[in-house]
Amino acid sequence: MATLRETLEAGRPTVGGWASIPSPFAAELMGRCGYDWVCIDTQHGLVGYDQMVPMLQALAITGTPTFVRVPWNRPDQIMKALDAGAHGIIVPMVNNAEEARRAVEAAKYPPEGSRSWGPIRAAFELDDYTPEAGNRRTVLAAMIETPEGVRNADEILSTPGIDAAYIGPSDLALGHGMAPVLAVREAEHEQLVRSILDSCRRNGVLAGIHCDSAQTVQRWHDLGFDLASLSSDAVLLREAATAAVRQVTGRAAGVGDYA
Amino acid sequence: MATLRETLEAGRPTVGGWASIPSPFAAELMGRCGYDWVCIDTQHGLVGYDQMVPMLQALAITGTPTFVRVPWNRPDQIMKALDAGAHGIIVPMVNNAEEARRAVEAAKYPPEGSRSWGPIRAAFELDDYTPEAGNRRTVLAAMIETPEGVRNADEILSTPGIDAAYIGPSDLALGHGMAPVLAVREAEHEQLVRSILDSCRRNGVLAGIHCDSAQTVQRWHDLGFDLASLSSDAVLLREAATAAVRQVTGRAAGVGDYA
Amino acid sequence: MATLRETLEAGRPTVGGWASIPSPFAAELMGRCGYDWVCIDTQHGLVGYDQMVPMLQALAITGTPTFVRVPWNRPDQIMKALDAGAHGIIVPMVNNAEEARRAVEAAKYPPEGSRSWGPIRAAFELDDYTPEAGNRRTVLAAMIETPEGVRNADEILSTPGIDAAYIGPSDLALGHGMAPVLAVREAEHEQLVRSILDSCRRNGVLAGIHCDSAQTVQRWHDLGFDLASLSSDAVLLREAATAAVRQVTGRAAGVGDYA
Amino acid sequence: MATLRETLEAGRPTVGGWASIPSPFAAELMGRCGYDWVCIDTQHGLVGYDQMVPMLQALAITGTPTFVRVPWNRPDQIMKALDAGAHGIIVPMVNNAEEARRAVEAAKYPPEGSRSWGPIRAAFELDDYTPEAGNRRTVLAAMIETPEGVRNADEILSTPGIDAAYIGPSDLALGHGMAPVLAVREAEHEQLVRSILDSCRRNGVLAGIHCDSAQTVQRWHDLGFDLASLSSDAVLLREAATAAVRQVTGRAAGVGDYA
Amino acid sequence: MATLRETLEAGRPTVGGWASIPSPFAAELMGRCGYDWVCIDTQHGLVGYDQMVPMLQALAITGTPTFVRVPWNRPDQIMKALDAGAHGIIVPMVNNAEEARRAVEAAKYPPEGSRSWGPIRAAFELDDYTPEAGNRRTVLAAMIETPEGVRNADEILSTPGIDAAYIGPSDLALGHGMAPVLAVREAEHEQLVRSILDSCRRNGVLAGIHCDSAQTVQRWHDLGFDLASLSSDAVLLREAATAAVRQVTGRAAGVGDYA
Amino acid sequence: MATLRETLEAGRPTVGGWASIPSPFAAELMGRCGYDWVCIDTQHGLVGYDQMVPMLQALAITGTPTFVRVPWNRPDQIMKALDAGAHGIIVPMVNNAEEARRAVEAAKYPPEGSRSWGPIRAAFELDDYTPEAGNRRTVLAAMIETPEGVRNADEILSTPGIDAAYIGPSDLALGHGMAPVLAVREAEHEQLVRSILDSCRRNGVLAGIHCDSAQTVQRWHDLGFDLASLSSDAVLLREAATAAVRQVTGRAAGVGDYA
Repeated sequence: MATLRETLEAGRPTVGGWASIPSPFAAELMGRCGYDWVCIDTQHGLVGYDQMVPMLQALAITGTPTFVRVPWNRPDQIMKALDAGAHGIIVPMVNNAEEARRAVEAAKYPPEGSRSWGPIRAAFELDDYTPEAGNRRTVLAAMIETPEGVRNADEILSTPGIDAAYIGPSDLALGHGMAPVLAVREAEHEQLVRSILDSCRRNGVLAGIHCDSAQTVQRWHDLGFDLASLSSDAVLLREAATAAVRQVTGRAAGVGDYA
Repeated sequence: MATLRETLEAGRPTVGGWASIPSPFAAELMGRCGYDWVCIDTQHGLVGYDQMVPMLQALAITGTPTFVRVPWNRPDQIMKALDAGAHGIIVPMVNNAEEARRAVEAAKYPPEGSRSWGPIRAAFELDDYTPEAGNRRTVLAAMIETPEGVRNADEILSTPGIDAAYIGPSDLALGHGMAPVLAVREAEHEQLVRSILDSCRRNGVLAGIHCDSAQTVQRWHDLGFDLASLSSDAVLLREAATAAVRQVTGRAAGVGDYA
Repeated sequence: MATLRETLEAGRPTVGGWASIPSPFAAELMGRCGYDWVCIDTQHGLVGYDQMVPMLQALAITGTPTFVRVPWNRPDQIMKALDAGAHGIIVPMVNNAEEARRAVEAAKYPPEGSRSWGPIRAAFELDDYTPEAGNRRTVLAAMIETPEGVRNADEILSTPGIDAAYIGPSDLALGHGMAPVLAVREAEHEQLVRSILDSCRRNGVLAGIHCDSAQTVQRWHDLGFDLASLSSDAVLLREAATAAVRQVTGRAAGVGDYA
Repeated sequence: MATLRETLEAGRPTVGGWASIPSPFAAELMGRCGYDWVCIDTQHGLVGYDQMVPMLQALAITGTPTFVRVPWNRPDQIMKALDAGAHGIIVPMVNNAEEARRAVEAAKYPPEGSRSWGPIRAAFELDDYTPEAGNRRTVLAAMIETPEGVRNADEILSTPGIDAAYIGPSDLALGHGMAPVLAVREAEHEQLVRSILDSCRRNGVLAGIHCDSAQTVQRWHDLGFDLASLSSDAVLLREAATAAVRQVTGRAAGVGDYA
Repeated sequence: MATLRETLEAGRPTVGGWASIPSPFAAELMGRCGYDWVCIDTQHGLVGYDQMVPMLQALAITGTPTFVRVPWNRPDQIMKALDAGAHGIIVPMVNNAEEARRAVEAAKYPPEGSRSWGPIRAAFELDDYTPEAGNRRTVLAAMIETPEGVRNADEILSTPGIDAAYIGPSDLALGHGMAPVLAVREAEHEQLVRSILDSCRRNGVLAGIHCDSAQTVQRWHDLGFDLASLSSDAVLLREAATAAVRQVTGRAAGVGDYA
Repeated sequence: MATLRETLEAGRPTVGGWASIPSPFAAELMGRCGYDWVCIDTQHGLVGYDQMVPMLQALAITGTPTFVRVPWNRPDQIMKALDAGAHGIIVPMVNNAEEARRAVEAAKYPPEGSRSWGPIRAAFELDDYTPEAGNRRTVLAAMIETPEGVRNADEILSTPGIDAAYIGPSDLALGHGMAPVLAVREAEHEQLVRSILDSCRRNGVLAGIHCDSAQTVQRWHDLGFDLASLSSDAVLLREAATAAVRQVTGRAAGVGDYA
């Protein structure tokens, strides 16, 4: 089974699932849909730590490599997700090199960082789990989505230990005075995305972005993005069910678009 | 807010959602998709009692009327689901009048049955929850899906207290020597479905059936079915995610078709 | 710490708490309020097995003896509650000697019954948990609350292994054509209660009854009842909160009276 | 259904419930008792994130506006509670303007703050959930309860985005060398409360306080407080049960007064 | 990965783990210890349905084939465990051919039985899950442990669809007037075990037995038993911890021997 | 029942259990094995807050004093664990006096610190829970396990309110360029341990250390350590099960050594 790093470094664009329903069964379903990786979203998803653990177990059944998006750039959140078996971490709202270094500190064992030793589930997946092996396996992505983050993209992405930039298009737009949408239609929005992608290339790190549809994934893949996540389990379920009901009844349910 | 009974007796065909993911958030999502009702499936769904309770709460947020499919025709399962706030009960594999009477016994307070008094959440929804009011609100559907059940459809559906027949096409096919599919394509399968529908009409009860797609719902609605459930949350999620991945990558995930 | 049996056989009337909120913390609170015993209600309470277990643990902290009211007269429900550490079992709707014997079969090890051996938590509380010791500790109460049960009270209560009758006044009333109320105000209702109490005395078993208030507890204690349960955690919480709000605002919340 | 903000700004004093039992059913009970709002206490209540989510769902059934008291002034805690559907946030131990600004940063979308976009359950309640609408709906209360906080009350309460002061009388007393009691009986304690109330008026924000009884609520309402919370579910349950047992037996349970 | 049936029919004795701690992490640990199979004990273990599901997921990570011991010979319990992904079912206290047939009815799809179709997790493990494939994969073991069961061993074990006898030595002893011990030391106890083993051979089914130690497993393997389960997670943990404490302190904890 | 402080200050070496399986039943088992205290590990154990609470309840049954190791030196984590009933707190990776003071701030009520008042479960255990009593009962241990922590051991351990040093040998080794092992075999590793022990003696605080075996506990006890924790529930279970399987089959399972 390829690790998350191997998957990401294989040189082909990847597509990821996004798990925001706090349920190990929903997570297993996501792990069986063909995604290259699945991210358990403990930032905006309704997932807390005690639900995240059996969800990581559920994804392990299918061998799907996993990210956890932590709620914040906190060492304990990063370490606990890694100990529980996450293969990669997505850190929201990284604004500068100092914050990037803090994420690396938490995600990597000495001497690269100061992650505390105790890989309780992580060690299950390797015959010989050493600090070096753990550090090599762990993929660390910094979200660049604030004006400060965009300005400092190069210093963030050149921080040793940062493997990827991850773009949240909604926050990127909102922080720059646009409406918070996943689809990137405005020129200024597109320009921001491209500038981060350029910084990824300059700094030799992977480029990732959250997408609202398969079409958008395709678009970013074509532009050179390495990771693209696709909507979320909650959105997919709601959209599929709403569409089915509409087909039968003509009724359109009126709920918001964010879950 | 219309009750389940009012919804079903309004004279128009209805479409229901099917909740088999054990998660209150997934249940709330289902309740926001425009279904006329949602059934929490504690027979084949991965839902036990301790997960069913917050799922009933989640559906109550949206005002969506609820069925619970109980695991088996057991008085305690029926009573506990009703006490927790289910508006209707779907009882699997009812084979004859005696079994239908047992379901009614459990679902209705004296003198119609012998349901024990203790409507701990059920009483929340009425200003004056009396045994009569509770009995009137509770909708009871008997699944007719075995050869014995088909033979005894009239005696089952004429049992006082039975409000509806519910057809499980897979079991209906399997019990009659065909492959267990939700889609009804073989003539013999179709004939079985129509014979139960005819029995519903003869006995003045509602007719319901589980469906694999919006097209199938439409087909059965056109034929006169009153209730049609549409796939399930698990299937909708898996199909939507698999389709999205396939759009991007051309890959088709190879999991089974049953969840 | 006195066992449930010692507590009940001490010759003074007892008052019990009723736990219907599925929460180990609520259960611990109930165990700290001075009750002689607390019953976890898995019949009408919103408690399933996976919540019952940590609730039994929570009550064990306080040393309060515990009943579990099982959902139905099923051997597995009785055995699992006992294995998990319940000291007594309350069986709903026992109608005749045959049903009483079935409850005893499940609650007692051979040769008195056929309870299967595996006292996984029950054995924690005794230095030497033997079948004899287990059987002696386990208190078994049969609810007499249906017309058939009332008619057969003597045969039920003379069944070896039945330690107590427990009266559910609501079901008793409802089954006899009265409104399902805990308070016993009608003469016919009172007569039914007294006839069961008389049968308890004739058969040398304890008499128990569910009560709506401290006043009612007092009334039945005075009449000779040994066990009286008092309302429930859900009702106490709702009444106390509603009363407090009313004191401040004059508003009365309009929810039902059953939880 | 009135929002929390509409409820609080309607110009009449309000009374809130306090949910510290980690249970969706207990939360629904609290939501049905007539409170103007209910606060889920994840600071001192036994509620973690994975229990908070279904409790927010349970309160949504009843339409009761909700606060969440976060454990600490942390952006992720504030954002996760809001995304899950809390209408207001109570932040403990705010000591100065800088801390107040940090709370606003987390609670408000740009340009007012830097809350990350992803209103997964919050968006369910509005037809058009925009950053502006979200910011307007979200009520933010700063607890002023430390000596430093009292000294800096004006700078805290004049921070744009702070809607209310919330007083924890116990901590207020304890930090000033008095016993940590909810009831305010000492003159110095009263003076501290009044000084914060005065600051609220000067700065045009709402004034809130935690209370031990309906009498205390009345007292503070009369003095001009806008929000008063009343004891907690745990205390109400324990007090009601203990009082009932005492009525029957004369026994008083000896547990502490803090839950 | 070998299926449970393949593992059992490979012609070598097997050793199984016993999971009675309700925890997906404990289950995963058990799945990583080298057992040929692990049984989740929902009879005497503290495991209810809502905990069993993520435990089956946890064991699936490791590829360890799984049994579920159901609480009782109930069709819904058997069907729900199989739908959730159990590879085999152990049915307690099978007393005669009629009871054996009922277990087969529940465990096998038509025409062999009447299991209802809905293999929600079970279907994940096969490319083409058909009724025939499902029936073939499902291993069904009947516990022979009561005097009636011993007398009727041949009729039970010759029931088509029964794959194995499983002996619970404690119940076997207790039902025959001996102390309920896992170790078989009395001649009469041993004779009972051997008589069931003989019946297995006569009827061409597998023979299984629960054991207290590796020594006992060895003994029964040598005698020809095919399946031997070893103690339980709870007992192993308690014994290991108690032994370690005793090594350090000389203290022996005094708890019972049954968990 | 002796408190944790009384146990630790009794002048004899103590041995503690380590609970990393998120399960109240596993915790109760640990509480029944004779340990002087049990630590619930919410840093590297798979335990989040919502699982920690019923685990603290489970340990309270047995009267075993409890530590909680918090994930990080965060005031909310420390306060919430104490409010839920932990008797002591172990804070990971304390590097200097400033960090030690922050831990004390969180763990102690004014005037010693600034812990917020709300001892919701903690107060249950004392007739009169006052700030002074709470402060006295609470034991606070700082982990010294980083190079910076070792250098600053004296300033950390002389911080008022710090009761003990706790050594994590793995991190201690890893941070100093050695392999992260619990067993201390290298001279440099041993020297680091001894230097911390010396600092404990100089500063009059207790000395604690995590151990891989009873032998290691004995070794450190002989050297003067006051607290020694022994492996963990997860490791004990895995080792015991693996050893038993190996005895029978000769097979050795190949999983990692860290859980």
